[in-house]
Amino acid sequence: MAQMPIDVLTIGNAIVDVLARVDEAFLEKNKLVKASMRLIEEPEAHRLYELVGPSVIISGGSAANTAAGISSLGGRAAFMGKVRDDQLGEFFTHDIRAAGVIFEGQPATSGPATARSFILITPDGERTMNTYLGACTTLSPKDIDKVMVEEAAVTYLEGYLWDPPAAKDAFVKAAQLARKAGRKVALTLSDSFCVDRHRSSFRELISRDIDILFANERELASLYETRFFDEALQHVRNEVELAVLTRSEAGSIVACQDEFHIIEAKKIAKLVDATGAGDLYASGFLFGFTRGRPFAECARLGSLAAAEVISHLGARPQTSLKALAEAAGFG
Amino acid sequence: MAQMPIDVLTIGNAIVDVLARVDEAFLEKNKLVKASMRLIEEPEAHRLYELVGPSVIISGGSAANTAAGISSLGGRAAFMGKVRDDQLGEFFTHDIRAAGVIFEGQPATSGPATARSFILITPDGERTMNTYLGACTTLSPKDIDKVMVEEAAVTYLEGYLWDPPAAKDAFVKAAQLARKAGRKVALTLSDSFCVDRHRSSFRELISRDIDILFANERELASLYETRFFDEALQHVRNEVELAVLTRSEAGSIVACQDEFHIIEAKKIAKLVDATGAGDLYASGFLFGFTRGRPFAECARLGSLAAAEVISHLGARPQTSLKALAEAAGFG
Repeated sequence: MAQMPIDVLTIGNAIVDVLARVDEAFLEKNKLVKASMRLIEEPEAHRLYELVGPSVIISGGSAANTAAGISSLGGRAAFMGKVRDDQLGEFFTHDIRAAGVIFEGQPATSGPATARSFILITPDGERTMNTYLGACTTLSPKDIDKVMVEEAAVTYLEGYLWDPPAAKDAFVKAAQLARKAGRKVALTLSDSFCVDRHRSSFRELISRDIDILFANERELASLYETRFFDEALQHVRNEVELAVLTRSEAGSIVACQDEFHIIEAKKIAKLVDATGAGDLYASGFLFGFTRGRPFAECARLGSLAAAEVISHLGARPQTSLKALAEAAGFG
Repeated sequence: MAQMPIDVLTIGNAIVDVLARVDEAFLEKNKLVKASMRLIEEPEAHRLYELVGPSVIISGGSAANTAAGISSLGGRAAFMGKVRDDQLGEFFTHDIRAAGVIFEGQPATSGPATARSFILITPDGERTMNTYLGACTTLSPKDIDKVMVEEAAVTYLEGYLWDPPAAKDAFVKAAQLARKAGRKVALTLSDSFCVDRHRSSFRELISRDIDILFANERELASLYETRFFDEALQHVRNEVELAVLTRSEAGSIVACQDEFHIIEAKKIAKLVDATGAGDLYASGFLFGFTRGRPFAECARLGSLAAAEVISHLGARPQTSLKALAEAAGFG
């Protein structure tokens, strides 16, 4: 049987999540900015780990979560990212493949350990991430499989990948290969502090290489240094073909030149853990996009996938999104 | 402030659980006996891991879970068991200490990796365990801290520890030290297949060194090679001072010489994952026991702790059992 072509190739930091519940006072005492992601080095990782209660390990990584979501929806997804040949690397590799995602990269045999993010979940379900990048810092252009990039309808890059310097080169290489092959390149801005760190080069990259941009309000505000959403929206629609803007429980907006769609968020019974909301929204949207669905439907698929993932602990779907989508009337 | 003395010291295999959901057909196809524990070697661990879907890693180990439960109830618990100095060993160590349990053993610096149990959860919430013992096989009598055993009101041993040969010697050493110090020794039979493997030496141990025996119906049936529960009950009350027999949703029976108590199980909304039910029942019972509570109350505390742990994924409490017990009227 001939293989289906790859719908979406995602490239990002290969991370395992270490999730622990904390109270609001814990964030305050440790001066952590709620709902953000900060990068930490090994000593801080150890210090923080000792302070938190019993934890759970679940595979994560923004772009990896997106790939898992696309696969769960019935799409063909691939992921590129770097782990080490250690226990957590083995766990990450198992889980991404078990999710049906093509993951063929070789683990590093030396250097720092597989990346982990200490994710602190407050009682309101919000997540505050503290990421030790470890082996992710060794991803380099030679890890980019040219054939795979050229095959994938969409190559999706996470902004977080801009943090490790060699990975940034890999990121740019992939974007350019995809463009040259006439494929679409998508980017998520990942986190407003990440945008703060890399604003000017993100702006340059977006205007040059990006077809589809995913961002939430805070990230967009940081990118264009404005607190007026409408102003940011004007900027972004002049720079990318398709802008997909998420606004948490306020839903999402799709802007494609003069075409606008405002889509409500899917209601959920209880926000258990917000980790992966944006990642899974992108899964739904991109799955619809590669199937040629109208933008509004793509956005609704995004909401459906995001709603599933925030209803439980961990940033990967725990039930078949394909079945959920079918039950919700997506044909 | 003076430290409280140790209420319960538990000794067992130090294991991290790798939990994955499977359907009934998966068990059948792989010839796995539902609700049992089997020991596997590394090649089988790899084979099985490749077959299962995305997983979650949560610290486990029967006696370690019991210690975590006692701590959650407000008791002072200690644990002895062996991990390696690897990522999973670090995770296990973090979690048991974060649960408030004293764990001072040194990790092995060579030899097999930290133990893991591949726990397959079927849609009915039942768990089928496949355990690679790894570093647990290196626990030996020199790992038993004499002072701690002599201090603990109860030393609790898991039958599973009878599987690794050197650990068995550690187990016997601890039991005898505790007896000599005038402390109570408790044993859980762990699993009916485990009893099958070690029947005669378990029988000998029980009549010689055990004050409190925990068993479920199948384990007791295996121990006395009878399918008649009443007959097994007659046997056991002649051999141990206190027998605590669990019968899943049928509740539990406490037999102390001529005194009998039949206690109903606590109703739960949904059985999510049966892993740890027996372990946490023992937490509740022993916590009550060390506080001098009547047997019926000890058993009800056991039911309360078991009910919490089977309502979510993973074999350690996710909420304060002390608060739950207070809310349920335990003073």
